[in-house]
Amino acid sequence: MDVLAEANRMIARGENVISLAVGQPAAPAPQAARDAARLMLDHGRVAYTDALGRGDLRERIARHYQDAYGQSVASERIMVTTGSSAGFNLAFLAAFDPGDRIAIAAPGYPAYRNILKALGLVPVEHEVDASTGYVFTADHLRHLHESGPVAGVLVASPANPTGTMTPRDELRRLVEYADAAGIRFISDEIYHGLTYGQAEETALAFSDSPLVVNSFSKYYCMTGWRIGWLVLPPSLVRAAERIGQSLYISAPEMSQVAATAVFDSRDELDAVRTGYIRNRDLLAARLPGLGYRDIAPIDGAFYAYARIPEGAIGSTAFAKSILERCHVAITPGTDFDQRRGEGFVRLSYACDHASLGEALDRMQALLRG
Amino acid sequence: MDVLAEANRMIARGENVISLAVGQPAAPAPQAARDAARLMLDHGRVAYTDALGRGDLRERIARHYQDAYGQSVASERIMVTTGSSAGFNLAFLAAFDPGDRIAIAAPGYPAYRNILKALGLVPVEHEVDASTGYVFTADHLRHLHESGPVAGVLVASPANPTGTMTPRDELRRLVEYADAAGIRFISDEIYHGLTYGQAEETALAFSDSPLVVNSFSKYYCMTGWRIGWLVLPPSLVRAAERIGQSLYISAPEMSQVAATAVFDSRDELDAVRTGYIRNRDLLAARLPGLGYRDIAPIDGAFYAYARIPEGAIGSTAFAKSILERCHVAITPGTDFDQRRGEGFVRLSYACDHASLGEALDRMQALLRG
Repeated sequence: MDVLAEANRMIARGENVISLAVGQPAAPAPQAARDAARLMLDHGRVAYTDALGRGDLRERIARHYQDAYGQSVASERIMVTTGSSAGFNLAFLAAFDPGDRIAIAAPGYPAYRNILKALGLVPVEHEVDASTGYVFTADHLRHLHESGPVAGVLVASPANPTGTMTPRDELRRLVEYADAAGIRFISDEIYHGLTYGQAEETALAFSDSPLVVNSFSKYYCMTGWRIGWLVLPPSLVRAAERIGQSLYISAPEMSQVAATAVFDSRDELDAVRTGYIRNRDLLAARLPGLGYRDIAPIDGAFYAYARIPEGAIGSTAFAKSILERCHVAITPGTDFDQRRGEGFVRLSYACDHASLGEALDRMQALLRG
Repeated sequence: MDVLAEANRMIARGENVISLAVGQPAAPAPQAARDAARLMLDHGRVAYTDALGRGDLRERIARHYQDAYGQSVASERIMVTTGSSAGFNLAFLAAFDPGDRIAIAAPGYPAYRNILKALGLVPVEHEVDASTGYVFTADHLRHLHESGPVAGVLVASPANPTGTMTPRDELRRLVEYADAAGIRFISDEIYHGLTYGQAEETALAFSDSPLVVNSFSKYYCMTGWRIGWLVLPPSLVRAAERIGQSLYISAPEMSQVAATAVFDSRDELDAVRTGYIRNRDLLAARLPGLGYRDIAPIDGAFYAYARIPEGAIGSTAFAKSILERCHVAITPGTDFDQRRGEGFVRLSYACDHASLGEALDRMQALLRG
């Protein structure tokens, strides 16, 4: 966070900083989404919607489960949310009681921990590492649960910051163990669509019990629109609706209208994804030569997570030095892993290809010059 | 909530329901706001912003305090929020600890109670009534605090559901008592701009300690854009920023851009306000003749709160009967006042003038027919 703030100050001063630190696409939302928003501006009032979201968007999302995963999901189980941020809040409040212990992986998205704590829940971390390809497994969950009962577990695939994916069979084992043990499974699927090897699977393929958090921010390039969705088990829909009515009223309506149109922009979106693949190949080819080590499998999302080059003192100092001397912003691992993060950094490749090449050249000159 | 849901079902069936139940303007956002959004769609990516919001909007809001209240407020104290919903969440999380008791008035906006409880805080209600013009006073606050210390107090002026305003001197007494007693004052000013007698005053006129919650939803006609703001005491800015980063990332960027432009639409907005004044006069003239009693002073916002006509069994049954037999939706007081709400209803006059007249005619035919 401090590196990002300093990078923003440098950019504001007009310095030529390349950011490999932000989790958002360089591409704008697809044309169809922007056209739908424009039409609404011309003709409609932008109003509150039902707390669960507009019916047309809920139905379109339900259809997406059929198209993308071959899964039949009733639109009544879909809740439109103000980004996945609201999705996590609502999922936690609907599914858990204060004091509940929730299992998460370290490293992981820092907001998980922060939101859980803000709501009086207790994050319980299991450290993942190269021994499982940075994948949080059913064995990890069992180990945590046996050392003190957990009420829920949150798993992201592809994961932030590692970019790794949970293999299909491992996801099934996780969901089945959670169901059998009475642990509520929350599946963070916000990087679905951005996978480069194995196809992603939804947790809903194995059970109706999981809560799925998803978003239009990543694959759909709609970060600043603040729009996402939840799939809820039928028994939690009413609770989530009531909480959503109080905490959010509804997601922004123009973003809901734009999101309804964005599913039909697959060509544009896949072109953006092709750009990520080029970036990923470049990064995978050049990171080892710069001295980065233990690089997590770059399976999905738009992140690489790696141990800093030998000799560097720690990731915070390393990231500061890279920012000052190369004008390249990267994220220290301490944001994602409190105990081991000083050894790691995250590099985002959601930027354009030329900028990524330039950033790598600058680091090359410093680290190997 | 149930009356609203039934009204929505009837509207979906094509029935001619007039809603006096919703808290949102019938008018769309002003032209300048929509133009600014359109320009962004044409030329810009819609992205995450700083957690505190875009700098240009924060500066424009700061200037508004000078223009509207003659108060100098540094833009560094302004946080842009995803509607006042996010404002309340952030204010409560930044200012209070779990278990803290927070004083509120009954009747009051139901989300106060619900959000406080969701965050592990304890709402402590004081009932207001005709004896103080439905105003929550410094004496009420002292009474609550003496019967068990409160950490904070939340006061809305104009208030929902009553539409009453806290007189300037009473607001000063409240803020000064809170400051002296170490009670954090939260001022809900989301209906500012919609006042019809005395001018509204901001709590910031009396102290730098209050947190002010405001919104572009009401006077500025931007409900579905989900955009509002907080004014924070300097000591809480960093905490609110950190919590906002985790819980919301940022408010929708296009809404921030539109909101920056909306301050210069005063003519359009005052025309909408003039419509409310006509509605208010009509309502004030006709409600007594329909048998409504103990009508709270209709000083601001766009609500009238009144005791149901003599002989009606309770407000829930009364509202259901009005909906079924007149096709007019009104809100039972039970949404706002758990103990005494069965005796009251809220009527919103944010609709157009002709619809309000028609709704009153329909009720006249039923109640006095």
